[in-house]
Amino acid sequence: MSLDLTTARDWLAVAVEEARLGLAEGGIPIGGALVAADGTVLGRGHNRRVQDDDPSMHGETSAFRNAGRQRTYAGTTMVTTLSPCWYCSGLVRQFGISRVVVGEATTFFGGHEWLADNGVEVLVLEDPECIGLMTDFIAARPELWFEDIGEDPA
Amino acid sequence: MSLDLTTARDWLAVAVEEARLGLAEGGIPIGGALVAADGTVLGRGHNRRVQDDDPSMHGETSAFRNAGRQRTYAGTTMVTTLSPCWYCSGLVRQFGISRVVVGEATTFFGGHEWLADNGVEVLVLEDPECIGLMTDFIAARPELWFEDIGEDPA
Repeated sequence: MSLDLTTARDWLAVAVEEARLGLAEGGIPIGGALVAADGTVLGRGHNRRVQDDDPSMHGETSAFRNAGRQRTYAGTTMVTTLSPCWYCSGLVRQFGISRVVVGEATTFFGGHEWLADNGVEVLVLEDPECIGLMTDFIAARPELWFEDIGEDPA
Repeated sequence: MSLDLTTARDWLAVAVEEARLGLAEGGIPIGGALVAADGTVLGRGHNRRVQDDDPSMHGETSAFRNAGRQRTYAGTTMVTTLSPCWYCSGLVRQFGISRVVVGEATTFFGGHEWLADNGVEVLVLEDPECIGLMTDFIAARPELWFEDIGEDPA
C-alpha cells in the first residue's frame, strides 16, 4: 500500500528531530526511524560517528539497531533525512525493509534508485528543512562529512 | 597489487578466530577483520546479534567499528569468513575498501560479485573450515541464521 504524503511527512519529522539532536551533540545531522506498518516507531536514531567515535552508526543503522532484533522487516519503513548511502541501502535490501522515505537527495545521492529497482518502495520528499540542515553542515564541516561517506574532499 | 594466497589465508585465520569466539559465546559464527595494506589488523570482530541483542553487528560491521574512525580505506582489505550480505557489501562499497577476502560463499552467496563489478578486488577461498562452521551452525540453529539475514526459513 502506498504511503500518503501527510503520513510520510509526520514520520520524517521524527527523523528530523533525531538529526537535530545529533547536531546539538556536535555530530553529523542525519537522523532515521524504523516504522512499523501500523505507524509504530520501532527504533529511532542519529549518526553517532563523533559522539561514540563509531563510524558504523549512520542515521539508518542507528535506528535499525535501536529497534532491536526483529523476526521480519516486511511492511516496515526506513525513514531517513538523507538519501541512504550504499551501506544503509544494503541494510534495507538485506533485511527486506519494504519502504524508504527519504528527506532529501539533493546534497547527497545514495542508493535509493538501486533499492527502487530491487522492489523497495521509495519516496523522496526533497524537504527544504532537510536540505538546509545538510547544506549548512557540509559548508561548516566538510572534512567530517567526507569522512562519513568515505570520500576525499574534492 | 594482488594478494598472495598465503597472506590471504593468514588474514582469514584472524577472522576464523573471531568466528570461533562468537560461537563459544553462543552467537553466530561469522568473523571479520579489517586489514591495512601493510598487514596491520586495524579492527577485528564477530557477529554480535545474540551477545549484544544487536542486529546491526555482523562480522564485517563489527570489525569496521572496532577499527575506529579512519580518514580513508584505500588499500584496506575486509576479511570475512562468509560472503558479505548486502548490508556488509554496501559498507565495503561506500567506504572504498579496496579488497575483500571471503572465507566461503557456499553456504551463503551475498554481494561479492556486485563488489567485483564495482572495482573491488575479491578473493573467495572456499575454505573447508569456514564451510564447516556455517554448515553445522545452520543445521543446529536455522531460525537464528535466517533471522540474521532477514529471511524466512524455507
